[in-house]
Amino acid sequence: MREMTRHNLSEAYAGESQAHMRYQIFADVAEKEGKPNIARLFRAISYAELVHATNHYKTLGEVGNTVENLEKAIEGETFEVEEMYPAYNAVAELQEESGAKKSIHYAIEAEKIHAKLYTEAKEAALKGEDIKISKVYICPVCGYTSVDVLPEKCPVCGVPGEKFVAF
Amino acid sequence: MREMTRHNLSEAYAGESQAHMRYQIFADVAEKEGKPNIARLFRAISYAELVHATNHYKTLGEVGNTVENLEKAIEGETFEVEEMYPAYNAVAELQEESGAKKSIHYAIEAEKIHAKLYTEAKEAALKGEDIKISKVYICPVCGYTSVDVLPEKCPVCGVPGEKFVAF
Ligand code: FEO
Ligand code: FEO
Repeated sequence: MREMTRHNLSEAYAGESQAHMRYQIFADVAEKEGKPNIARLFRAISYAELVHATNHYKTLGEVGNTVENLEKAIEGETFEVEEMYPAYNAVAELQEESGAKKSIHYAIEAEKIHAKLYTEAKEAALKGEDIKISKVYICPVCGYTSVDVLPEKCPVCGVPGEKFVAF
Repeated sequence: MREMTRHNLSEAYAGESQAHMRYQIFADVAEKEGKPNIARLFRAISYAELVHATNHYKTLGEVGNTVENLEKAIEGETFEVEEMYPAYNAVAELQEESGAKKSIHYAIEAEKIHAKLYTEAKEAALKGEDIKISKVYICPVCGYTSVDVLPEKCPVCGVPGEKFVAF
């Protein structure tokens, strides 16, 4: 693909991904305001944006096999853990932005675990195997990630284990 | 919030939204390769990235009430319809990139409908009301969006109506 088209489609992928996310957040607000049909509209259109983002991403040729996809995932998580979030945290510290510091802290603690889990998955995938896990539990407040063990409370943000979402 | 922290958190929101999207695409690939537990890991971590993106977005103070959220949504859709996708399409035409043209065409046709539906929703919300709809149908191939009417086939991409996803 020519470079300018590639650049544009990458931007469109970024924009659609953010719209997909934003509309889910807006759906929850509409739900709480007692407007379930506006919430329904936001959720449906959020899914349409997922379709657009997926089309752009596939057209970019970014989807590989599982080993390649895990390599890309590990690269992204490692960048976040080793570079991006530490840099953002340093600026938030300097500017005494406590809300941002908390949001960054929650993310980086989970990303360390993601990098490790994806690395283990890649080792299995390289041998043509699946991983041997039965459940993944995610904290709905901070994104803390636990495989096969539901913690009594979240070790990062303290939320009770019963609030965790199971996959 | 200070400007550099705001800039960084916005970038983090963009990054987490794209990771959330990418991991869903990668989960489908793992599923098709017969690796359901790697798919499970991708889906769970995709949700963790939704938690991070949501935390960043709320910390940025970007979430308003439903009228404000609809205004933001209309602004985004209108930009895509009137500026972004036409510009990207012109470059894809120039560079004869047929895959990109198709992915852009699918998106812009749906975004026109989104702008209209959000505008109607804003009129209701301004009166403190919900909208009167019962179902929203989304084409899983192109994102075409239809309220209360399941088309026999998608008018944009031709997929049979029975494949549509209902919300
Ligand atoms: Fe936000 O990367 Fe697990
Ligand atoms: Fe991709 O905006 Fe409906």
